[in-house]
Amino acid sequence: MAPLGTSGAILRVHMKELAIIDEIRRKHAKPVKGLVEGIGDDCAILEYTRDEYLLWSTDMIVENTHFDLKRASYEEVGWKAASVNVSDIAAMGGIPKFITVTFGLPRKGGSAIVRRLYNGIDKVCREFGIAVVGGDIDGSERLIVDIGILGTVEKKNVAKRSGAKPGDKILITGPVRDGKKTHLNFMPHIAAGRFLVKNFRVNSMIDTSDGIAMDLGRICRASEVGCRLYADNIPLPRGLKLEDALHYGESFELLFTMPPREAKKLLTESPHKKTAAKFFVIGDITDKKQGMKISGKPGSMKTLKMRGFEHL
Amino acid sequence: MAPLGTSGAILRVHMKELAIIDEIRRKHAKPVKGLVEGIGDDCAILEYTRDEYLLWSTDMIVENTHFDLKRASYEEVGWKAASVNVSDIAAMGGIPKFITVTFGLPRKGGSAIVRRLYNGIDKVCREFGIAVVGGDIDGSERLIVDIGILGTVEKKNVAKRSGAKPGDKILITGPVRDGKKTHLNFMPHIAAGRFLVKNFRVNSMIDTSDGIAMDLGRICRASEVGCRLYADNIPLPRGLKLEDALHYGESFELLFTMPPREAKKLLTESPHKKTAAKFFVIGDITDKKQGMKISGKPGSMKTLKMRGFEHL
Repeated sequence: MAPLGTSGAILRVHMKELAIIDEIRRKHAKPVKGLVEGIGDDCAILEYTRDEYLLWSTDMIVENTHFDLKRASYEEVGWKAASVNVSDIAAMGGIPKFITVTFGLPRKGGSAIVRRLYNGIDKVCREFGIAVVGGDIDGSERLIVDIGILGTVEKKNVAKRSGAKPGDKILITGPVRDGKKTHLNFMPHIAAGRFLVKNFRVNSMIDTSDGIAMDLGRICRASEVGCRLYADNIPLPRGLKLEDALHYGESFELLFTMPPREAKKLLTESPHKKTAAKFFVIGDITDKKQGMKISGKPGSMKTLKMRGFEHL
Repeated sequence: MAPLGTSGAILRVHMKELAIIDEIRRKHAKPVKGLVEGIGDDCAILEYTRDEYLLWSTDMIVENTHFDLKRASYEEVGWKAASVNVSDIAAMGGIPKFITVTFGLPRKGGSAIVRRLYNGIDKVCREFGIAVVGGDIDGSERLIVDIGILGTVEKKNVAKRSGAKPGDKILITGPVRDGKKTHLNFMPHIAAGRFLVKNFRVNSMIDTSDGIAMDLGRICRASEVGCRLYADNIPLPRGLKLEDALHYGESFELLFTMPPREAKKLLTESPHKKTAAKFFVIGDITDKKQGMKISGKPGSMKTLKMRGFEHL
């Protein structure tokens, strides 16, 4: 989740803050019965049925950090709060099933605000067949919407951040949406995620909530690999600057890696209609020691900085 | 979850606000595959293994609504945020397993605050063998801690709000803790909950997060029954006023109903050591048409108002 660029409360990521997340992850990394993967991916992975995992994620959006009520309607806030969670399930190749909805509500206008927020949330639920199964409503000075989501994925199809391999092609759904314009009404890529994991070998996947650079960096860190990104190949719509696609985020595209043969097969099939997405090859996964690179002046490569919008 | 009485942001419940929750519940009440019970209990109940259900709950605490950083340390806030969720699992007779932890953090002091909050959360996790499996960290003007919890319970042992029957005895763990003094460091009644559901027929159960009157009212509404509460029987520690036990909450006792024979058996066994709780009979479940009553002057009954601290 990336904070909204137009608000006064933008908080850029600092390595100190990534460090605290790593510290928590290390502390909670010990094996636990029923837990397949804990902190460190778009969703936690839990044992569920014989053939399926349960995926669990949670994403909170906060007034003046992720949205500004002068620019966003309550319906849009509800839509966004649900969609960012659905996108986390998409990033694992999963199917969203259940959500809990927690509101922190200012004193005034309680019921009317709840109803309008739910209009947005319910639209997402209808779109993806999701059931609201619980939640909490509390008082708060600023509006908060925190949603928890459970989904499922076939064990053989689950896509993690940690599976990228040197030689993999890096792909993205696109054209990359302009997060500044679309973050309140984007459609999560569930169809594309399901199409990919059911029909192709996807070695790693993430959604670009915090920008291509930050989220590709997360794949590289989790997979212990490097990358070479070809800036000219990133499918930018008119008006979206490369810099914003790399470092702003809020576009919620699927960013994934697969062996070259699989990538070729995917591009040949061009399943735009089934998935409401196009797929683009934008780089290569390399050895870790090569670091993270992006093409600069013709023929040259420079360092890709893992800098973007972060939730802390 | 009840807001903190000492803060300026206390929001008393209004029927209008209960109405919106009922509206949401009705809207989302249709049967869904894999879902046993949705909105309306301490936890949602999901299908899990052949013999067990998955319990899912979420509870958020917000600065100046549930705690005041002038009176509470970050460790205490962390402890409380985790414990209120564990208490929801206790109220269903379940075993807590996994939590996600989401923070809304003010700009200043990020890592140090996170570390201190986690000291409190980790204490609860160690006490109950819970693993932290995910979460989210966002910017926020006021401190927010929202925890999601998953637990399990044997299908045959699950305790809901909706099973109370006329003739049941109403019981409570006690002496009832004074929510104003203990809400930051209370121990959730997992041991008592497990002891009860494994050894007795518990017809309904809830935790008293919002006061005996409000939470008993929830049992009566869900079970479509009435109640007669004997004020003199409520086990109050020195200094706790009846009024606060009824309407203030934050005591997180287990409030439950069982057939008279089961209640008698429970009181005879008096398993204080195993459960770290004593059990007290404080009333009777009656027909719905009798309404909710509480003993007043000797020999008389008056209406028990379903009024307490509510999260909206």
